[in-house]
Amino acid sequence: MTATPAQRPSAAAVNKAINSLKEYFGSRLSTAEAVRHQYAHTLTWLPTQPADAVVFAETTDEVAKVVSACAEHRVPVIAFGTGTSLEGHVNAPLGGVTICLRDMKRIVSLHAEDLDATVEAGVTRTELNAHLRDTGLFFPIDPGADASLGGMAATRASGTNAVRYGTMKDNVLALTVVLANGEVIHTGTRARKSSAGYDLTRLLVGSEGTLGIITELTVRLAGIPEAISGGICPFASVASACEAVMMTIQMGIPIARIELLDEVQVRACNNYSKLGLPETPTLFVEFHGSTAGVAEQAEAFGAIAGEFGGGPFRWTTHPEERGALWQARHDAFWAAQSLRPGARAFSTDVCVPISRLAECVAETKADIEASGVIATVVGHVGDGNFHTLPLVDMDDPGDIARVEAFIGRLTERALAMGGTCSGEHGVGQGKMAYLPKEHDAGALDAMRAIKRALDPHNIMNPGKLVAI
Amino acid sequence: MTATPAQRPSAAAVNKAINSLKEYFGSRLSTAEAVRHQYAHTLTWLPTQPADAVVFAETTDEVAKVVSACAEHRVPVIAFGTGTSLEGHVNAPLGGVTICLRDMKRIVSLHAEDLDATVEAGVTRTELNAHLRDTGLFFPIDPGADASLGGMAATRASGTNAVRYGTMKDNVLALTVVLANGEVIHTGTRARKSSAGYDLTRLLVGSEGTLGIITELTVRLAGIPEAISGGICPFASVASACEAVMMTIQMGIPIARIELLDEVQVRACNNYSKLGLPETPTLFVEFHGSTAGVAEQAEAFGAIAGEFGGGPFRWTTHPEERGALWQARHDAFWAAQSLRPGARAFSTDVCVPISRLAECVAETKADIEASGVIATVVGHVGDGNFHTLPLVDMDDPGDIARVEAFIGRLTERALAMGGTCSGEHGVGQGKMAYLPKEHDAGALDAMRAIKRALDPHNIMNPGKLVAI
Repeated sequence: MTATPAQRPSAAAVNKAINSLKEYFGSRLSTAEAVRHQYAHTLTWLPTQPADAVVFAETTDEVAKVVSACAEHRVPVIAFGTGTSLEGHVNAPLGGVTICLRDMKRIVSLHAEDLDATVEAGVTRTELNAHLRDTGLFFPIDPGADASLGGMAATRASGTNAVRYGTMKDNVLALTVVLANGEVIHTGTRARKSSAGYDLTRLLVGSEGTLGIITELTVRLAGIPEAISGGICPFASVASACEAVMMTIQMGIPIARIELLDEVQVRACNNYSKLGLPETPTLFVEFHGSTAGVAEQAEAFGAIAGEFGGGPFRWTTHPEERGALWQARHDAFWAAQSLRPGARAFSTDVCVPISRLAECVAETKADIEASGVIATVVGHVGDGNFHTLPLVDMDDPGDIARVEAFIGRLTERALAMGGTCSGEHGVGQGKMAYLPKEHDAGALDAMRAIKRALDPHNIMNPGKLVAI
Repeated sequence: MTATPAQRPSAAAVNKAINSLKEYFGSRLSTAEAVRHQYAHTLTWLPTQPADAVVFAETTDEVAKVVSACAEHRVPVIAFGTGTSLEGHVNAPLGGVTICLRDMKRIVSLHAEDLDATVEAGVTRTELNAHLRDTGLFFPIDPGADASLGGMAATRASGTNAVRYGTMKDNVLALTVVLANGEVIHTGTRARKSSAGYDLTRLLVGSEGTLGIITELTVRLAGIPEAISGGICPFASVASACEAVMMTIQMGIPIARIELLDEVQVRACNNYSKLGLPETPTLFVEFHGSTAGVAEQAEAFGAIAGEFGGGPFRWTTHPEERGALWQARHDAFWAAQSLRPGARAFSTDVCVPISRLAECVAETKADIEASGVIATVVGHVGDGNFHTLPLVDMDDPGDIARVEAFIGRLTERALAMGGTCSGEHGVGQGKMAYLPKEHDAGALDAMRAIKRALDPHNIMNPGKLVAI
């Protein structure tokens, strides 16, 4: 599924770019094979394609310095945050220079009174939340991994709270970006809304480093709710669980999290996180609000669950009990992986209109059974978004082919239901083949025209998203 | 403030484009002077600049037909919805063809179970809400005018509900767009989230017809809350009213509307809408939620208002009383205009981080008094967004100059506080001069590169936003 449409630069060009950076960066530039491999390796079955060098930048100006040097010699530049991307975003199919942003850790400013913070791209979501301790605020977007906020913006990430708080698209107010010519620009302001020009912020969020490198971002924060309650509710089938989700959303219950784990995933979590849950499709839910509000929401949800044969619905406001459940949910990937020793779990996701959720999940479960794939289903179902985690024996080409075909059918199914081939993981290399199935040719041409306009020499993370 | 950087096409080119459309469109194409003027006229002090012809399109394909003909002859194309824009968006500084979308009135689909609807661009917000009657759903975005949804998307409009429900940026899921080459593309899907490629939807929302013409859009709908309560609360000063707003937002009260009217605007509304309110700065508020929830919110707001010397806070769940108040709020523009017979009211807006709101409004009020401008202040203050409505004697060049200078200072003040030169009205012609003060040169260059990439012959609403 990898596309390498452009030419690898000459070794001479690459050497010139690297040599021009060596003196300044010293030991913060590495061409060691182990380092080059490490910074191209992610949780994907795509082969690792290392860059020619890895530079550890500490400031926006240093990122600009690297991009300028690479632009001069037409050498690719790949941004790296924490390496938790799932679709080969940090591979270097044409070589070039990987810029690791992990050391850009400054909290630039915190405006608690405006519910926003400006951070450097390498700050992770848990680091930001640790910084916010004692402010009464939190940053709600929580992909499974402790990803960097720059990487989360670049891939338009979301997570379990998105049904209530939105995705990175909704929670980034402003960006500092290094463009392909090495120029530093700022997009957006700290104002909550604006109609002053093209929305460069939203164009760059989800652009996966192909239009520019995000070095700083201003994100919205949320107040920690007065009360939080959470609970779990078992169902007889994934279809009935999904129908309860659909009704919950349609009734307008302002649920903060509503996650589906199928019976295979529950079994995996029981084993991995020692939960002791009944091994049946289960919803994990959480409510945020006033004390009276969360009780009201939980009661309304419990009634809906009951209508669809779910229950018993057990909920608690006790922080430790809730914490254990959500830790288990966040560990779902590792739990799934433990189901098949020697195999690797690969997470893929789609998103459909909520009315098609039950149908899409049920058909996908049937497909898993019929095709002999071993996979769990787990999802942010309040958005119509769900993941499957197929377990692949990487030494068995037949197994790999079976899983690839399954993911192809999953994507076609979601698209046929009015959905998208990627709810929150991005395109990278892994989902490039599906973009022409989702977008019409004119829309893809428009994306390519924008790519060419902002990156005329195709040096920004080439071979990803809409490769030109 | 008008910019006309490109050349007007030759009369021969314009005639060829118009003649190529005459046979098909018949009486739906007009070159009558009165019609040409009518479809360039808006609520702005910019001079009316009529197009050479106005075409009344009824389908996306017809819009594509007009754009194709104009593209062939390099003739400008200007989209027109209801003509309620405020910054000269529908002027035709280089002539060309105005495409009026007012007859594109179809509700293409309604998916109540997914809380979305797809409509043609000419459907207005009240028409959509009338269609939604009996579904339990509503479309929350409400600029003062009954604008077309296509125009609202094109200008990234918002309104009184944005503090709770977001702006058009947040409520458009998918678009059908005619590009500069006449090609029809679709952006987005009905899925609630996606990370499958560049966010063309968000790029086109707010692009003011300069990158393409929106002919259909899929919008999010909201459930009508179980309970709605609304009320008004007078304050001794705009500063104390704004401080109460800031605290309300910072406390996380999920307020649905919180609008400031200064004492001048209250007086105007008293006269125009026969309200009988005390003529002092006043907040109009509304709460959406469960019956218990809205009572809880109203109580919390009342306590905050009291802390800042506001009150008495009177609130009601009675629909007719609420309706009369909000009608008066929506009529604020006309009420302001009635304050100075013979003068015209012009609405301009800025938006600042909420922590700077009190300061920005107070300084603006002081500026109004010091400069002898007659103007009201009214705003969607929960977002940090407020309008001033200067009343201008259009026969007095001194008055016009005074108001222009005032708007310049207002904009500089908002930008200096980390805000934006336009919260919700867009750029058009009127705010072009302020974009270089808000965005750095590299960001404007990126906008122009995108404009050139998608509209290489500069025919889409030329001379607006970032004219090339």
